Parts: sequence; C-alpha cells; structure tokens
Amino acid sequence: MASDLRPPEHQVAGHRASADKLGPLVDGEGLFYKPLQAGERGEHEAAFYAAFTAHPAVPPRVRGAFFPRFHGTRFLPAPASPGGAPYPHIVLDDLLAGLPSPCVADVKIGACTWPPRSPDPYVAKCLAKDRETTSALLGFRVSGVRVVDARGGAVWRPDRSELKGIDAAGVRRVLRRYVSTGGGDDLDCALAAAVYGGEGGVLAQLRELKAWFEEQTLYHFYSASILFGYDANAAAAAAPGGGSGGVRVKLVDFAHVDDGDGVIDHNFLGGLCSLIKFIGDIVAEVTEKASSDHS
Amino acid sequence: MASDLRPPEHQVAGHRASADKLGPLVDGEGLFYKPLQAGERGEHEAAFYAAFTAHPAVPPRVRGAFFPRFHGTRFLPAPASPGGAPYPHIVLDDLLAGLPSPCVADVKIGACTWPPRSPDPYVAKCLAKDRETTSALLGFRVSGVRVVDARGGAVWRPDRSELKGIDAAGVRRVLRRYVSTGGGDDLDCALAAAVYGGEGGVLAQLRELKAWFEEQTLYHFYSASILFGYDANAAAAAAPGGGSGGVRVKLVDFAHVDDGDGVIDHNFLGGLCSLIKFIGDIVAEVTEKASSDHS
Repeated sequence: MASDLRPPEHQVAGHRASADKLGPLVDGEGLFYKPLQAGERGEHEAAFYAAFTAHPAVPPRVRGAFFPRFHGTRFLPAPASPGGAPYPHIVLDDLLAGLPSPCVADVKIGACTWPPRSPDPYVAKCLAKDRETTSALLGFRVSGVRVVDARGGAVWRPDRSELKGIDAAGVRRVLRRYVSTGGGDDLDCALAAAVYGGEGGVLAQLRELKAWFEEQTLYHFYSASILFGYDANAAAAAAPGGGSGGVRVKLVDFAHVDDGDGVIDHNFLGGLCSLIKFIGDIVAEVTEKASSDHS
Repeated sequence: MASDLRPPEHQVAGHRASADKLGPLVDGEGLFYKPLQAGERGEHEAAFYAAFTAHPAVPPRVRGAFFPRFHGTRFLPAPASPGGAPYPHIVLDDLLAGLPSPCVADVKIGACTWPPRSPDPYVAKCLAKDRETTSALLGFRVSGVRVVDARGGAVWRPDRSELKGIDAAGVRRVLRRYVSTGGGDDLDCALAAAVYGGEGGVLAQLRELKAWFEEQTLYHFYSASILFGYDANAAAAAAPGGGSGGVRVKLVDFAHVDDGDGVIDHNFLGGLCSLIKFIGDIVAEVTEKASSDHS
C-alpha cells in the first residue's frame, strides 16, 4: 500500500476527507479508497461490488468498460473514526489515474433516486430532492463538475448549492462548458468533437451502455452516477475527428442498488436516454457548425 | 351521426356509460365518443388532440400509426348531465372498429403518473397508487384486459380490483394469457407469434414507437396508456409466422400530457422499454419452443 494517501484533487461530489472527516483517498498509484458509508449502505455497496465482480451474467466487456475494478475492502488508519481505529474502505481503480489535467462530471441518473420498497420517510426525502433538482424533469442531475481550461489551466468547479439550483437550460450550459475552452458566457464547445463525439467518445460509450440496460434485468441502479472523465490537454491535442482524449465513462455509487428480479432498470435507462439526447444535441450542433464552416 | 350510440362492448378501463353515468360511446360506424373529463382535464385533452393533429414536427407516420384520429369535439344528448343538457365529447376513431372478436389490453405507461409540476396532494395520491400497483417497479401497469377465446368464444375480463393487486409475475401471466387460447393455468401462448411477433406485430410496433420516443421532445405523456387490440379469430387463422391478425397499438388518454420543452419523455420511454422486454421475452420463448419442436 502506498504511504501517501490523500484526498483526490479532482473529487466533485460526496464528502471530502480531512483531518476530522472520513472521505475518499487515492494512493497516486491507481487505487481509490472509499470509506464504507454509515449504516447498511456501506455494507450494501461492498456486497454489490463483490457480487457484481463475480456475476456470470454480466458481460466482461460491460464490467471492464463501464465499472471501476473492485479490489476488495481494506482497513485504513482513520483519524476521524472513533478512537482513531482503522476504518473499512472499498478499494477501487482510481478512475482518473493517468490524467494530468482531469475534467470530471458526476451525473446522478434516474428520475427517481429511491428503490420502490423504501420506507416512506426516505421516499419523501428523496422525492423532494428529485423534484427540487432536475432529476424528476430530466431523468438526471449534475451532482458535480470540474473543468480545467486547456489553455490557461484555470479550474472551474461550481459548489454544490450552485449546481442544485440549475434548471434544464443550466444543465445544457454545464454540459457545454464541460467541453469548452475559455469559459465565460461564450461557450465554444471546442472539445465537444473530441470528448463527446467520435468512436471512443462519451456519446458512443453511453449508447453502448444503453444497449446493455435495454436487456439487463440483474440490477436496478438507484441513485448511482455516471462519471465522465477526460484530460484537458489530451483532448485539446486530439484530432477534431474526436474520440482520443482518454475519455472515460463509468458507473459509480452503488449504495442503493436493488435486485432487478427479471425487470429492466427502466428508471436508469430513461434517464440515460435523456442524457444521451442532451449530449447528442451538442454533438449534432458542433458537427453541423463544422460542416457549414467548411462549405 | 349514427343514431344507435352505445357503450363500447370491449371497454376495459375508465368509467362505463349508463343511464345515469357519462361514459364513452361508439356509433358502430367507426367513431368513438369520449365525454370530456371534469375540471381542466377534459379541456386539456381536447386541446392536446387539436394541437397534436396540426403539429408540423410530428411525423405523419407516427401520428397515423400510433394515435387515434381526432374528429373534433361534439355535443351529444347526455341523460346523465345536469338537466339532460348536451355534453361535449371528444370524437375519435374507434380503435377496435372492424374487429368482430376484439381482444384488448390497456397498459398505463410510466413509473410516475403525475407531471413534475403537479400540486403536492395530487403527487401524493398518484405516488401511492404507482407504488401499490406495478407502475413504480415495472414502469407500467395493466389497467384493463379483455380476451376472447378463439375456440369457444368465452370472454375473460378481470375486474379492476383484480388487476390492481397483481405483481410482476401476475403481469407476465396477463400478457401471456392475452395471447393464449383456452385459459386456465396452462397458458399456451398459441397466438403470441401472430399477435406479438412478426412484422406488423405488437413488438415491432412498440419498437418503432420507442425510436420516436428516443428523439421526440415535444410532449411528455404522463398517465397515458398504450392500447393493444387484435381480433381473436383473425389471429387464430393467421400464419404462424405472425403479424397478420389486424394487430393495433395505439396511445390513448391525454388528460395529463405536458409540454416536453426540449427534453425527451424519459418516464414514458423507460416504461415502454420495460414493456418491450416483457413482450420480447414471450416472443423469444415461443420462437425457441417452435424451433426445438421442429428439430
């Protein structure tokens, strides 16, 4: 185990680790340590990873492409835990390892973030949040985003309250800003072809994921997120044809995964299709612009 | 206007017309008269039909294949209305006209049956019903079904309370019974290839509808239903290759349609994909059985 565990620089959602708070850590050598969540959630998430990793009906391609690799659970020294006792962490691939200037977006998928058999007070709490945010209306909400400007290196990372209040138009702006250089009101979407478009781009990966969700009836991923990642410099250097900026699309956060029991995850799938439409619209717009610029 | 207006024999959901109750009527010549619902709903549904019929962005093929044709609104004598005054009705194609032995299923689509901006008490009422029925879990619920046995002519029409209580396994049984001859516990799915499968079958039609829902951002169809119809005798006589039993797949019930505002209807689409999986599973099962019987 590497000795220099530290909070990930690029973290955009969830609690942040500090001297008196548990939070995720990275070792700088490719591993990500996520403290088990309190109550049943942490155990539930660890059990999901263990079962999912071994499940014979999960296509290896899907597991490898769209999920972080699971390396078991490990106890780490935790100053913030009672008496400083070691605290259990889920060990995963660091999804942004190898990206010198990572640009990250965390998009929580699903109009409904609670499993159907949840107790009423939990339903009421989640429902209120789903209606206050864009979840109910769009089928997803942006939980966090971090964009490094490839030109100047400036980092844009809106805080949680700022993201909470945005509407459909705001989501569209965030998804455009995620692939723009500069910033400000004039979002150029200069990296859209490289990051969203092309063969290995976000859109192609989301469509592959969608094909699995149209068939899979093993799991229902309530309150899970899709994490996007790319490297600002690599994307800026990529050919305008797109798809070579080290683009990553991964599912994360499995504390509320439910058994599928033979039914597809229509809630996740609906939100995923909505996200695909939002990103497809941006790709179509830049593709049209590029072809009219050349004509 | 034909003089012999009467309640449709095949009605499987909603209020039934009688001497002292408003309900839908048919004229036996191809038209269906639906009394305007109380409050804003009736006006809202009539306005939807008028706007939808004229909307330039709705592909004519989609409008023609999947929606009843709208013939305006008309006042009809209504013994049940106050003072016997004429009451406004929406005039539509009778979707089951020309089917001597219509088999009908009404499937309400969407995990969530209330538009996001609904008042809290309405949300609470709908949410309770969505959780009690299969809507939340499956993304759809069977609201009504009527099956005529092609062999003996016996009609199976479970009442509303019977359908309300069914779970995922019950829905699977109903969808199998809808294409079975006989009845009882041994559901033979003898008509599955003709009704669900093949070129013009339910599955092919649902997939075409799905392609539109992946793109369309005009409308959100909360609490709308898909109505299936076929003729028991025609389906029984159809070639086992499938798809020639006069199969109809139509959207109905538009009192809660919302503007799409540039966002796809992820709630309807998710439920539609779930229904496609249920029906696709039945088609796959009978196809496999047929090929193993022949080998």
